[in-house]
Amino acid sequence: MSASWVDLTGATAATLTTACWLPQAIRIIRSKDTKALSAWTTGLFTAGVALWLVYGLARRDWPVVGANACTLSLNALILGLKLRYG
Amino acid sequence: MSASWVDLTGATAATLTTACWLPQAIRIIRSKDTKALSAWTTGLFTAGVALWLVYGLARRDWPVVGANACTLSLNALILGLKLRYG
Repeated sequence: MSASWVDLTGATAATLTTACWLPQAIRIIRSKDTKALSAWTTGLFTAGVALWLVYGLARRDWPVVGANACTLSLNALILGLKLRYG
Repeated sequence: MSASWVDLTGATAATLTTACWLPQAIRIIRSKDTKALSAWTTGLFTAGVALWLVYGLARRDWPVVGANACTLSLNALILGLKLRYG
C-alpha cells in the first residue's frame, strides 16, 4: 500500500466533506429559505458530528478534531437557521 | 484511555451521520421540493463521501467502507433528486 495517495485521498475527502457546508450556510443566509431541509437530518447530522469531535479528542486524532470542529460550527449554524426559518 | 466508550462514541457517531440522510431523502421524495438545498453542498459532499469510501477500501477499514457506502447511496439519490427538481 502506498501511503501517499491514500493519505492524499483522505485529506481531500476531509476537505470536501468539511468545506461543502459553506455554500449551504451562505444560501440560507441570503434566501432565509430552509423549507426543503429536513430538521431531522440537520439535527441528527449535527449530533453525529459532535460525537465525531469527541471521538477525535479522545483519540488525540487532530485531523479528525479539526475537520469535525469546522463541520460542527457550520452545521450548528445551519441547524439554528432551520429552527429559526422553519 | 478506555477503548470501550471511545469505540462506542465512534460507532454512534458513524450511525448518526449515516442514518440521518434517510429523513432528507424521504422528505424530498414526498414533497418533490429541493429548492432550499445547495447543489454545491450536495455535490461536494457526495464527492467527498465517495473519496472516503475509496480511502476506506485502500486501508481495508470495513466500518469506514460500510458507513460511507450507505451515506454515498443516500446522497447520490438526494443529488439526483436535486438535479431533477431544481
